[in-house]
Amino acid sequence: MLRQLRESLGEEAVITDSAALQARCHDRSGTPAPGMPLAVVRPTSTDDVSTVLRMAYEHGISVVPQGALTGLAGGANALPGSILLDLTAMSAIVRIDPVDLVAVVQPGVVTADLAAAAAARGLFYAPDPASATESTIGGNVATNAGGMRCVKYGVTRDAVRSLEIVLANGDVVRTAPPTVKKVGGLDLTSLIVGCEGTLAVVTEVTVGLLPAPGPVRGITASFDSRDAALDAANEIMVRPHRPSTLEFMDETVIGATVAYDPAAGLPTAAKGWLLVLTDSELQGADDIADYVSVAREHGAMMIDTATDPERVDELLKARRLLNPAMHELRGDSLNEDVSVPRSRLPELMTRLDELSADCGLPIGTAGHVGDGNLHPVICFDPDDPEQTRVAHQTHERVLALASELGGTVTGEHGIGLEKLSAVDTELGPRVRDLQRGIKQVLDPSGILNPGKKF
Amino acid sequence: MLRQLRESLGEEAVITDSAALQARCHDRSGTPAPGMPLAVVRPTSTDDVSTVLRMAYEHGISVVPQGALTGLAGGANALPGSILLDLTAMSAIVRIDPVDLVAVVQPGVVTADLAAAAAARGLFYAPDPASATESTIGGNVATNAGGMRCVKYGVTRDAVRSLEIVLANGDVVRTAPPTVKKVGGLDLTSLIVGCEGTLAVVTEVTVGLLPAPGPVRGITASFDSRDAALDAANEIMVRPHRPSTLEFMDETVIGATVAYDPAAGLPTAAKGWLLVLTDSELQGADDIADYVSVAREHGAMMIDTATDPERVDELLKARRLLNPAMHELRGDSLNEDVSVPRSRLPELMTRLDELSADCGLPIGTAGHVGDGNLHPVICFDPDDPEQTRVAHQTHERVLALASELGGTVTGEHGIGLEKLSAVDTELGPRVRDLQRGIKQVLDPSGILNPGKKF
Repeated sequence: MLRQLRESLGEEAVITDSAALQARCHDRSGTPAPGMPLAVVRPTSTDDVSTVLRMAYEHGISVVPQGALTGLAGGANALPGSILLDLTAMSAIVRIDPVDLVAVVQPGVVTADLAAAAAARGLFYAPDPASATESTIGGNVATNAGGMRCVKYGVTRDAVRSLEIVLANGDVVRTAPPTVKKVGGLDLTSLIVGCEGTLAVVTEVTVGLLPAPGPVRGITASFDSRDAALDAANEIMVRPHRPSTLEFMDETVIGATVAYDPAAGLPTAAKGWLLVLTDSELQGADDIADYVSVAREHGAMMIDTATDPERVDELLKARRLLNPAMHELRGDSLNEDVSVPRSRLPELMTRLDELSADCGLPIGTAGHVGDGNLHPVICFDPDDPEQTRVAHQTHERVLALASELGGTVTGEHGIGLEKLSAVDTELGPRVRDLQRGIKQVLDPSGILNPGKKF
Repeated sequence: MLRQLRESLGEEAVITDSAALQARCHDRSGTPAPGMPLAVVRPTSTDDVSTVLRMAYEHGISVVPQGALTGLAGGANALPGSILLDLTAMSAIVRIDPVDLVAVVQPGVVTADLAAAAAARGLFYAPDPASATESTIGGNVATNAGGMRCVKYGVTRDAVRSLEIVLANGDVVRTAPPTVKKVGGLDLTSLIVGCEGTLAVVTEVTVGLLPAPGPVRGITASFDSRDAALDAANEIMVRPHRPSTLEFMDETVIGATVAYDPAAGLPTAAKGWLLVLTDSELQGADDIADYVSVAREHGAMMIDTATDPERVDELLKARRLLNPAMHELRGDSLNEDVSVPRSRLPELMTRLDELSADCGLPIGTAGHVGDGNLHPVICFDPDDPEQTRVAHQTHERVLALASELGGTVTGEHGIGLEKLSAVDTELGPRVRDLQRGIKQVLDPSGILNPGKKF
């Protein structure tokens, strides 16, 4: 089959040397790959992808679609004897339409490149996953990627209008017309978004764009009580202008971040910290004054406004230090991605405190408080087997806690190879059977990223 | 089975008298029901629905879920020997949560009642289908209902967070946790929304709410060229403040509406008319000045501002006269629901002119221009068999035209019993087979609204 593939796609498109395979075996989750792949295959067109899938289908070979490998759940990790379908060479921005407000792109386009191309036309691609400067649109679609702007603009699924996909047997279809509204068929587009490569391979993405927003500016507010910060966040969510970003850090994360980067300009002694940004038009907008007054009413100890782009960038960067800063505390960490109704956040935080006290490991939490999607991080010493064991046990307890509070074990990272049993519990056997039935319809012989998500 | 149902649900929940059956046999599409039902069954709880489906599943009886029968595609029409599952008695607003910004409602809640209950808490339910004062949330979910506010807030699917559904065999499940973000499983929620009762029966709906917007106000602008009106609409779509409503009428519809209701206050001699509303906060908002200047730049003959709620209501009502006014022209009409990329609207309109000239029947078009979703109406004399034949032939040509222009045969009304072959053509056999495969997974014995949508 590899010989046939070389004949069809060209020698350079089929890579089998061991170092090159190793380099594409896993994403950033820290989850090991279940096995070594057969080859990395780099298609440059939809026809190429169709050829690969047709051959893989005939030979019963597993196919793992891959983008920039920035995923956090092992979804793109290699499977034994699989083809790693590296879509990063399909990186054309096919079209940006300033009237229809859409961009048509290949899956390998880097998210930030699409955003920049839209901005150059006075337009705006809203989704902003943390890895946007590296991640690809295809990967964002596969994982239904979130980010800090979801609170105002929604997730990747909300931006996707239509997909060109290659089915398991190589057939190429479009999920739906690219119109804003359509109710002709079942919503295949939303089904494919977030499927983590288990239902089809996406070869072209049509996304909606928006007019360019105003400049990003906002405030940070520090509180001497965590609940006061959470309450202030709740109040900001019912203010007239929805913030474009509403982020939270708890005391442990603030401490770790200040230690990791003293220049980040975070408060050194606060129990809760909010970052509230707006991107509404400047003219007449009093969002900042409004956010300041909400923070004051909730007893903020310190409020800083950030009106220049450099300071805003610094603050976003400081918030993104969550994982490296927490990693430093003990040498390793497990990064969670729970989401609960916002009213349950104080309870979630209290229960996380109890878990931390119980297991004797630091747990710090930060994240997208406006969406109720927080990232608790469990810190442990990887050289201490007992700490390692307890950390993984605590991880399972965090997942169970999220479901118990009416939430989910994953708000934006996905299942991949992780959390498989937790998501079965969360959704229940009947719903999971339906989802497996749907998988079976789209991938009858089970060659598309088998063992992931399901 | 009816006896068993009476024992389980109570005598009054199972109705078989012929007048009552007749009254619930069809929606507002004008499409005849394929046959007489066995009974109307009125559940008052999820358990009742589960009982009905379990029995129907055992006996192989078709079930047609019904709401207020305001649909426009025959989706809720009776099928021969079927149970009409009238969900209007399940009309409780279970909970409105002002922190989590959600409402949990039973499917029989009237859309406007939910909107009013949210408004009473200072919150906002965005979707506003034209029939909102009568339609039910369950029907809106089944059809993924649109409306005049979609241009800013999206369709019903965009508001739905999670569903409780009863599966074909009576099992009760939840599609997903009610969190804003979740990526654990496949997106079953989006799959059920818009399925027109063919995959499951929805028994509880969790929708997202927003903070109450500002007062609705705006402008109307009349143009002496249709393309100028369409161009102005395109320009308004890239202005900083997305209008909450952006509607269009062509010359034929303006004329018919003025004739139907001279008091509606529409211009008597214009080739195109726009209604542009905003609901942004008043403070500092200059949306109206902005829309006026766009209309002026595009040569508007007449611009009126509408700042008081009564005038806004009048204008919305005038726009909603589309169907009755066009109906009057010849005594009957066929109402289309095409959606195309906005850049194709001038071509769509020109081609509709050609169709009208070719078939000798008036075609007037109005609708949600901001979303590219327009409603051409073909007028004919129902007493003239030749006109009637030509009108139906023209209907098919309008559907083909929408698909040819990269659009869809239905933007917001659905397929129901209509447009079945047109949607097969639009989506292609492979996509339709996948959708039928998914239907088969959820409804293996085909008792849920069979013959609709597929």
